[in-house]
Amino acid sequence: MSKKPYFPRVALIGIGLINSSLARLISRDKLAESIIAYSRKEATLEEARALNLCNDYTTDITTAVKDADLVVLGIPVGANVSVARLIGPALKIGSIVTDVGSVKQSVIKDVSPYLPDGVHLVPGHPVAGTEHSGPGAGFPELFKGRWCILTPESTTDPAATESIRNFWINAGMQVDIMDASHHDQVLAITSHLPHLIAYNIVGTAYDLEAITEREVIKYAAGGFRDFTRIAASDPTMWRDVFLSNRESVLEMLGRFTEDLASLQRAIRWGDGDALEELFTKTREIRRSLIDAKQV
Amino acid sequence: MSKKPYFPRVALIGIGLINSSLARLISRDKLAESIIAYSRKEATLEEARALNLCNDYTTDITTAVKDADLVVLGIPVGANVSVARLIGPALKIGSIVTDVGSVKQSVIKDVSPYLPDGVHLVPGHPVAGTEHSGPGAGFPELFKGRWCILTPESTTDPAATESIRNFWINAGMQVDIMDASHHDQVLAITSHLPHLIAYNIVGTAYDLEAITEREVIKYAAGGFRDFTRIAASDPTMWRDVFLSNRESVLEMLGRFTEDLASLQRAIRWGDGDALEELFTKTREIRRSLIDAKQV
Repeated sequence: MSKKPYFPRVALIGIGLINSSLARLISRDKLAESIIAYSRKEATLEEARALNLCNDYTTDITTAVKDADLVVLGIPVGANVSVARLIGPALKIGSIVTDVGSVKQSVIKDVSPYLPDGVHLVPGHPVAGTEHSGPGAGFPELFKGRWCILTPESTTDPAATESIRNFWINAGMQVDIMDASHHDQVLAITSHLPHLIAYNIVGTAYDLEAITEREVIKYAAGGFRDFTRIAASDPTMWRDVFLSNRESVLEMLGRFTEDLASLQRAIRWGDGDALEELFTKTREIRRSLIDAKQV
Repeated sequence: MSKKPYFPRVALIGIGLINSSLARLISRDKLAESIIAYSRKEATLEEARALNLCNDYTTDITTAVKDADLVVLGIPVGANVSVARLIGPALKIGSIVTDVGSVKQSVIKDVSPYLPDGVHLVPGHPVAGTEHSGPGAGFPELFKGRWCILTPESTTDPAATESIRNFWINAGMQVDIMDASHHDQVLAITSHLPHLIAYNIVGTAYDLEAITEREVIKYAAGGFRDFTRIAASDPTMWRDVFLSNRESVLEMLGRFTEDLASLQRAIRWGDGDALEELFTKTREIRRSLIDAKQV
């Protein structure tokens, strides 16, 4: 068993789905003396305050991080550079900075240049989420039974990594440690590409001339509705994911398109065996997922 | 309100997810004097018998239909021609033949030539389902709150159409009547294309060299798992759907691919505004779906 993690002061930078879930979890399990939430937007802080998620709330990012032992970046990955530049000089020596973003090479590139010596960066990605956003969307069980990936560099203090590992284990997650570049490839296929094609098909449906939006909605139970759920995910967050993981996303998209062209050909030429063979194989993968309790 | 439908004898041709749900519904609501189930496979009939779904069970399709007032084809659409050829001569004059398939032009083309005068064909499509198959997968509430589409021809007896309409309303569905060709177009985007791209992405993930199947499964919570559910749908049924609705599926696939190429370009060139604009629009569609209670 892991030791219960404890940080006297936690700063949550951004208070959306993930960080507000964390706030609830930290309070519930008494993992900190106090939590301070930062948001650019006063309205978001008001929402968090009304839910009584943290002890302190501020729109001043320097105030947020200056006494913090743990800083959790829960913001769109495209905002990392500007946030790192602002918090760098204010961070406490010995503190740990982690994040919850879906892309990991970019956080290392964007944040580490601004961290003073003695501040530890442990990039993290709890692979969990819903299509809802904002402080009201969080819940402490969001992470339970899911996997968290940490991508420390070879120079990262092992004690800092261990401390973040314990933190996520306490949240109910299983933790893997891997290279940031491998993370970005794996997530490109298990998360980024699924979102991209869900956004795309919903967009395609929206633009049809011969079929009304009302018809699409009425008959969505045939499969479409599952895609609309994913395609309702936070627009800014996902814009940044695609731009920050460009290379891996384009690589996976290339493979997807190639495979789709081959399926298209099978349909055009009536090659039923090729179709049935693929559909039988994909069914097996669902079974493995059920066996692994990841449904 | 609609009149409670009643058919002295119902023949269910095929006893998978949809027809076994119907068997349960007909028994529960006493919509027939007796139900007979036909399957090619003795094992499937045994399963239905063990669940006590019907009154009679047969692997002889002529026996199944000969006294039936309502015949429901619940088989992969590719089997319609051979089934119609077999049952045609045995059908009772005045009986109604309907189906539950996901493609409607093909059922008219495949079945109607074999029906004797005085037998009514009312093609139907209850837009409801799960990724599970077989007699054990059905449940009577499957249809509740969903839409059913009927595609009678202009020459179809209105009384037969009305009778099938009442039947589905009784099952808890809302019923629309439209042209078979329009149905096939609408379903190509709301159901067939979603299945095709879900099958495709799961296949793409399976074929990656640098990422193991175990990794794909562990991190599936990032979006991929929703696709595996759809990609676990019955392989034979879906092979037939794509082959039978070839034209509309290829048309929608062409539009999807075109839109995807444009998204790909936006990612490559870092056009964040184009991405965010699409992702904001698709979020709206999800909201409409929630408002229409189709999630």
